[in-house]
Amino acid sequence: MKVVVVGAGLAGLSAARELGKTGAETVVLEARDRVGGRVEGGELGGHPIELGGTWIGEGHSRMHGLVEELGLATFRTWNDEGKTLVQLGGRRTLVNGAKGAVPRLNPVALADLAQGLARFGRLARSIDPAQPWTHPKARLLDSQTFETWVRRNLRTPSGRAYFRVATEAVFAADASDLSLLHALFYAVSNADLETLLAVDRGAQQDRVVGGSVLVAQRLADGLDVRLSTPVASVAHDGTGVTVTTRAGQTFTGDRVVVALPPTLAGRLRYDPVLPAWRDQLTQKLPAGTVAKTFAAYPTPFWREQGLNGQVACDTGPVKVTFDVSPPGGEIGVLLGFVEGGEARRWQRLPADRRRQAVLDSFVRYLGPRAAEPTAYVEKDWSAEEFTRGCYGAHFAPGVWTSYGDALRPPVGRIHWAGAEYAVEWNGYMEGAVRSGSAVAEEIMRL
Amino acid sequence: MKVVVVGAGLAGLSAARELGKTGAETVVLEARDRVGGRVEGGELGGHPIELGGTWIGEGHSRMHGLVEELGLATFRTWNDEGKTLVQLGGRRTLVNGAKGAVPRLNPVALADLAQGLARFGRLARSIDPAQPWTHPKARLLDSQTFETWVRRNLRTPSGRAYFRVATEAVFAADASDLSLLHALFYAVSNADLETLLAVDRGAQQDRVVGGSVLVAQRLADGLDVRLSTPVASVAHDGTGVTVTTRAGQTFTGDRVVVALPPTLAGRLRYDPVLPAWRDQLTQKLPAGTVAKTFAAYPTPFWREQGLNGQVACDTGPVKVTFDVSPPGGEIGVLLGFVEGGEARRWQRLPADRRRQAVLDSFVRYLGPRAAEPTAYVEKDWSAEEFTRGCYGAHFAPGVWTSYGDALRPPVGRIHWAGAEYAVEWNGYMEGAVRSGSAVAEEIMRL
Repeated sequence: MKVVVVGAGLAGLSAARELGKTGAETVVLEARDRVGGRVEGGELGGHPIELGGTWIGEGHSRMHGLVEELGLATFRTWNDEGKTLVQLGGRRTLVNGAKGAVPRLNPVALADLAQGLARFGRLARSIDPAQPWTHPKARLLDSQTFETWVRRNLRTPSGRAYFRVATEAVFAADASDLSLLHALFYAVSNADLETLLAVDRGAQQDRVVGGSVLVAQRLADGLDVRLSTPVASVAHDGTGVTVTTRAGQTFTGDRVVVALPPTLAGRLRYDPVLPAWRDQLTQKLPAGTVAKTFAAYPTPFWREQGLNGQVACDTGPVKVTFDVSPPGGEIGVLLGFVEGGEARRWQRLPADRRRQAVLDSFVRYLGPRAAEPTAYVEKDWSAEEFTRGCYGAHFAPGVWTSYGDALRPPVGRIHWAGAEYAVEWNGYMEGAVRSGSAVAEEIMRL
Repeated sequence: MKVVVVGAGLAGLSAARELGKTGAETVVLEARDRVGGRVEGGELGGHPIELGGTWIGEGHSRMHGLVEELGLATFRTWNDEGKTLVQLGGRRTLVNGAKGAVPRLNPVALADLAQGLARFGRLARSIDPAQPWTHPKARLLDSQTFETWVRRNLRTPSGRAYFRVATEAVFAADASDLSLLHALFYAVSNADLETLLAVDRGAQQDRVVGGSVLVAQRLADGLDVRLSTPVASVAHDGTGVTVTTRAGQTFTGDRVVVALPPTLAGRLRYDPVLPAWRDQLTQKLPAGTVAKTFAAYPTPFWREQGLNGQVACDTGPVKVTFDVSPPGGEIGVLLGFVEGGEARRWQRLPADRRRQAVLDSFVRYLGPRAAEPTAYVEKDWSAEEFTRGCYGAHFAPGVWTSYGDALRPPVGRIHWAGAEYAVEWNGYMEGAVRSGSAVAEEIMRL
C-alpha cells in the first residue's frame, strides 16, 4: 500500500504516521516551507509564541498522548491567580477565572443567561456529532442562524452579548454566519459550550513547552515530507492515484489523503471531476476569520493588578485576550484575538492602524502600561494562501442537512482528513489528530 | 490598452465587445470548447433546446437590444392559452397563467399569502441594490435566513409552501440557504418577486428563436476567443498582468477581467495572493443547485387538456415546469426544474432512477401521456467542472454585511464580471451583459 498525503498539518502527519506503522509507504506533500499547517511557531521578545493552534484541552487525549510519546511536556495556561475581566454593555466585572467564565451580572441578566445556557446545553446533547443531520428536528435547527436562536432565547442585552462574544471566540465567526445546528454540533463534539470556553478543565487548559509546533515537527521526523511542494491536481482511476504538483512533479500511489481545509481541498483540480455534492459541499465550507495579535512587556504586569490577563468584552477589535507568557513568566506576553466581523474590518486597515487599534483595546482592558509593548506581532490567517482562514470551516444554515453525509466518505481513491472531519473535538488540534488516525484506519481496512 | 478576459460567458463576451468598440485589444480565454458559459444550446427531438439560461424578461433591455442588433428574433413563452397548475399541500388548483402565478387558495391562506407578499415587497423596496449592506437594518436582515422570515411572517402551510417553492424556482436554493437580506436584494434587483416569477411582463416572458446560445455565439464573432484554454493563474504588478493557462501558455495585458462565477474565480491562483476579504468573499458565494430536465412528446398534449404546461408544486423532485416547445409547436417539449435540496438528493441517484423520478413528476402533473416521451435529456449544472452550480451564487446570512463592499471593486489590475456582480437584473443573462458593460466602462475610465 502506497499513500500520498496532501498537507503536512496535524491531520496529514498523523495519517502518514499511523499508515507507516502498518507498513504502508507514504509521502507527505506540503505547500509551505514548514510543517504544521494551522499550527505555527513564532518568536516574540526572545521567547517562542504560537501563531496558530495553541491549547490542548482536558479530554484531548490523543494530543496529551503524543506530547508524552514525542518527549514533550505541557504546562498550565495562566489561570490560577487573578481575575478574568468581563465587560458586556459597558459594565466591567471581575470573575474568578478558575471557576469559569460566567460573569457577574445583574440578577435578571444572570437568570436569562443561565436559562439560555441550560437550553442550549439540552439541545446540544440531543445531537449525534457523527451525523447531526439525522436529528428529528435537523431541518428546523439547520434552517436558522445561531443569531436567530440567540435573539429568541435570550432576553437581556447582556445575555445576548455573552453568547455573541462566546461565538466569536469559539468559531472566529459571527453568530449570524452559523447554522444553529452547527453551533449545537460543535458544542457537543467538544463536550459542551462551557468546556469550549473554559481554561481549567476546558479547551484552553494546557500548552506545550516550547510551542505546539513541536508536536508537528516531531511527528514529521522520520516521515517522507516534501516541503514547498504545492499540489495542483489529483487524478485517480481503477488502478491508483497520481498527484501532480504545481511544478509538474508527479507522485503515484494506491490512495491519496487530502488533508487540507475544505475550502482549499475544493481548489485542487480532480480527474475525474468531483461529484456535484462533494464539490458543492466545499463551496459551502468557508473558513472563519481570525487574527492573533501578541504584545510583549517586560513583565506580565496585569498579574500585579490582580488580573489573569483574560478578557471577554463585547467591544472590539480585540474582544478576547489571554496571558500567554512563557511558563517561567520571564516576560509578559498578551494574546489578543481579532475575530469574525471585527477581523473583516480590521484587516483592511494599514499596519500601523491595525497595531494601534489592538493596543487601544489592551489599554482599555489593562491600563496605560499596555500601550508600550517591547515587541508586537500579528498573524492574520485569512491572508495566508495555504490556509485562507481559521480556526476552521463553519457550516452556514442548510449545509449540514443538505451535504452532511458527503463530508466524510471517500470519493473513489480520495480520502479526506482535517480538524473539520473529526467527530470528537472537531476544530481542535485533537480533532485533526483523530481525523488523521481515522482516515488511516479507513484506508487500512480496505 | 490590452485586456485579457477570462471566461466567454455573456459577461466576458460583453466586456470584450464593449472594450473592442473603444479600440482596446482583447483576448477571451475560455475553458470549454464552446462559448456561452451558463448559456448552452442542445437538441431534443430534432429541435434546439436551452440547457442553461433561457428567458429574456420584460425590462431586460440590453438583451432585447442585442437580439435585434445581432439579427436574432424572440418569441413569447407559451402562456396565453391554458392554465397553470398549482399544487400546494396536496390541493390542486388551476390558475389563469396570463394573470400571474398566485394560486387559488382558501380565503385564510390567500389572505396570509397576500399579506406576506405585500410585507416582503415593502421591505425589498427599502433596499438599495447597489449596496444592500447600507440599509439601516442591514445587520438584522442579514443575520437571519429567508426561511426564518417565512416562518415568522406566513402563518398558513400554503402560504409558507408558496414562498418556499418560489425561492427554489428563483434561486435554485432552499429558503434556509439564503440570507433574508439577499432574498430582498435579489427581488429589488429584478424589480420585485412577482416579476421574478411571472411569464408575461416577467422574467420568463421571451425566448430567442433558435436558442439563447445564439446571442453568445454571435457576440463571439469577431472577437479573439480561445476555446479549450482553461486558465490556471493570474499575476499582476505595477506594469501589467500575465494570465497563465493550465497548459502553460501565457497572455499579457494591461488589465484582466475575471468573468467567472465567484466560486470558480476563487479557485484560480493569484500572484500576489488576493487580499483576505476578497478571498473569503468567494469562499462564501456558493452556487445554487439545479438540473434542467427535458422530455419531448409528439405534441404538446397538455395544451389540449386546457393546461399551459406550467406547474408549481411543493412535492418534488420536479416542482416547477414550463412548456418550452419550439415556437411552431411542431413537437411538445416539457422542461422540469430539479432545484435546491431536491437536486442535491436526486443527483445522487443512478441515471435510470433520475429519469424515472422526473417522469413520475410529469405524470403526476399532466397525466399518463407524460410517461412515454420520445426523447429525454437532463443537465445538472453542479456537475460541470467549469460552472459548478446554477443559476448563480447566493449569499448566506452575514455575507452581504461582512463582505458586500468587496464584491465589485477591482483588486489591482484584476476586474470582476458576471451575473453575480450586476446591480440590476442580478443573476440573469441581462445582468451578465450589464456587468460586462460596466466592467468595460470601469476599465476605460482608468
